[in-house]
Amino acid sequence: MAERPRRAAVNRRHFVAGSAAALTGVSLAGCATASPSRRVEDVGASVEPFYGRHQGGVATVPQAHAQFVGLDLVPPPGRNARDALGAVLRLWTSDAERLTQGRPALADTEPELAAQPARLTVTVGLGASAFDRAGLNHTRPATLSELPPFGTDELDPRWCGGDLLLQLCADDPVALAHAGRVMLKSVRSMTRQRWRQRGFRNAHGVGRPGGSMRNLMGQVDGTANLREDAEFERLVWDDGADQRWFAGGTVLVLRRIRAEMDTWDELSRDAKELVVGRRLDTGAPLTGQKETDAPDFGAQVGGIPVIAPNSHIALAHPRSDGERFLRRPYNYDDPPAAGATTDSGLLFATYQRNPATQFVPVQERLAAADGLNPWITTIGSASFAILPGVQPGQTLGEALLA
Amino acid sequence: MAERPRRAAVNRRHFVAGSAAALTGVSLAGCATASPSRRVEDVGASVEPFYGRHQGGVATVPQAHAQFVGLDLVPPPGRNARDALGAVLRLWTSDAERLTQGRPALADTEPELAAQPARLTVTVGLGASAFDRAGLNHTRPATLSELPPFGTDELDPRWCGGDLLLQLCADDPVALAHAGRVMLKSVRSMTRQRWRQRGFRNAHGVGRPGGSMRNLMGQVDGTANLREDAEFERLVWDDGADQRWFAGGTVLVLRRIRAEMDTWDELSRDAKELVVGRRLDTGAPLTGQKETDAPDFGAQVGGIPVIAPNSHIALAHPRSDGERFLRRPYNYDDPPAAGATTDSGLLFATYQRNPATQFVPVQERLAAADGLNPWITTIGSASFAILPGVQPGQTLGEALLA
Repeated sequence: MAERPRRAAVNRRHFVAGSAAALTGVSLAGCATASPSRRVEDVGASVEPFYGRHQGGVATVPQAHAQFVGLDLVPPPGRNARDALGAVLRLWTSDAERLTQGRPALADTEPELAAQPARLTVTVGLGASAFDRAGLNHTRPATLSELPPFGTDELDPRWCGGDLLLQLCADDPVALAHAGRVMLKSVRSMTRQRWRQRGFRNAHGVGRPGGSMRNLMGQVDGTANLREDAEFERLVWDDGADQRWFAGGTVLVLRRIRAEMDTWDELSRDAKELVVGRRLDTGAPLTGQKETDAPDFGAQVGGIPVIAPNSHIALAHPRSDGERFLRRPYNYDDPPAAGATTDSGLLFATYQRNPATQFVPVQERLAAADGLNPWITTIGSASFAILPGVQPGQTLGEALLA
Repeated sequence: MAERPRRAAVNRRHFVAGSAAALTGVSLAGCATASPSRRVEDVGASVEPFYGRHQGGVATVPQAHAQFVGLDLVPPPGRNARDALGAVLRLWTSDAERLTQGRPALADTEPELAAQPARLTVTVGLGASAFDRAGLNHTRPATLSELPPFGTDELDPRWCGGDLLLQLCADDPVALAHAGRVMLKSVRSMTRQRWRQRGFRNAHGVGRPGGSMRNLMGQVDGTANLREDAEFERLVWDDGADQRWFAGGTVLVLRRIRAEMDTWDELSRDAKELVVGRRLDTGAPLTGQKETDAPDFGAQVGGIPVIAPNSHIALAHPRSDGERFLRRPYNYDDPPAAGATTDSGLLFATYQRNPATQFVPVQERLAAADGLNPWITTIGSASFAILPGVQPGQTLGEALLA
């Protein structure tokens, strides 16, 4: 099984155009054209590349399921924590290079569950506390710093912080569960789980691949996102100017944003659209016809702005190119506490070169005035330096720990 | 959107054979033959029928995701509880006939999330306590009784019982979350949630549709299952001989079975295969070559049975046709408690005419001697009378409450 030929990797740029033919290698003239929404694919056998300048799970077309796990290093600070960090990264590199390609991990006790990776990606990051604990503060990227407090945050420590991040994404929940089991088991003597957050988007074959998604509040989410290589180079990937070892990495900000569904559902559709600045049906800005139309923040009717200045899109809209970042959100919907009807919201995962200049100014505007604030509450926050990718024979973080 | 033509419903018997052509209505000669594992489909637009003699979600080819919710009626016993039960069933009928067909519920505040049902099914059941509370004991099917205690059970009340069951299944997690939100919100004044259990199988397009699945212990699960119409008539659907209103219904037994993954993973593959009686790779019985081969419980090598008498399949194997029932299990994998590595196992959902004669004898054998017992623990148990299906204009349970 380990040696059978794999289909070509699905990547961000080639997915939308001609995916069916690329994936199957057979002529589909007259078949794939029946409807653009019908695809021919073996979802389980699809793989994402593991080796490269960057880790997977960032520029990758978002998979249907995600699991974010925050862990702390158990050994005492200093040499011991640093050794443990090195051991964790060696184990995870080994696990990830196999599992993402549909091969069992080295000590995989359920190897059959590894055979259908369904575009599994593994993305490993280090929190600021890991650098501190491992005596590596001099190598910490300056871009990895704590976010300032925002006035609307109601942070619960159980969704915050962490020395290590393990982000797993896949189109199949079984593949995801198996990878999580293997990779958390292999490091259990050296780490302690701090939190675990599960999220989902539409299943593969539902909705538009690689496009925006609908969140559980019913809004089209993630319309104005980074797509071009040049944007990723400029705004997402670190260039190593500060810390050479970090070239090709990025910084993840993961915010857990609770939706206040009961009060949101009391709003009329008109009110919801005014609060957001987009139509609920098409996702088009209130000044446009379709989702991809650029919002016209200057448009007025009778002297009143069509898109309210405190609407979500008006405030979230970047004031400059340097305020843009990659959003890769997932919905969450967990069993509610006793008496509550719903515990759902967004795992708002953003990737950027420098949160302080890209993420923070936008979030400060939103915290100050976003019309949506009464219906969303940020209850968790964590930032991680996502390690650069590796080539065969290399270990994640090897340049950091060398 | 509500009026656009829908693709033909996917049903149990027609799914495996020729699903691609049936679903798209275009000729696929030369395309679908490239590989049997490649399908052409719009997963989101696929619908399961709502109207019929039976509710969906039982004979339906298992969808990728499931949510089982146990609820209690809030009003005091008697007339008030009975009125509430009637109101809940009217609301849920209305919600289900719309949502399963890709149309928003009547008071749907996120109607766009209803457009991609992805084979959503809604399955409603009543626990024995609901009949008691609503003053309907004289109409309770005799087949709906509490299970006897089993020696290996470690039941936690938080996964047991319930007046009402709402079972939702879909191939898309967003469709499932939306249906859950709508249907639980619409009854919130009359009900209190007792438990909520989420489960998953392989995503649509991964593995074999309608076939057995692998559980998170790595075993092929559900090989010897009911498949033929005549088996469903004989063993699953109630014939109304006891309670006429219940004709076309069935009884669900939902057991939450925790897998003791840490100790299971310490077993060798040979030991695991002996404990189960099947090979891990192919799912074939130890006396056979492929999954569908009938186990030969008499086969011996050197006087020793090849399939151990206390192996899981030897004890689970029905001693008569009357011990067979439909299994429709889902994996669960929840965030573990502090210090634990994993909280996973099986939502073992079985559907049968009479648990006392079909389910209980098998479970008693397993509880007494199953070699797998050290690695599985039943921590939850609940039984529900799954209401008969409805025709247009009818309400679920209407014959019961008339």
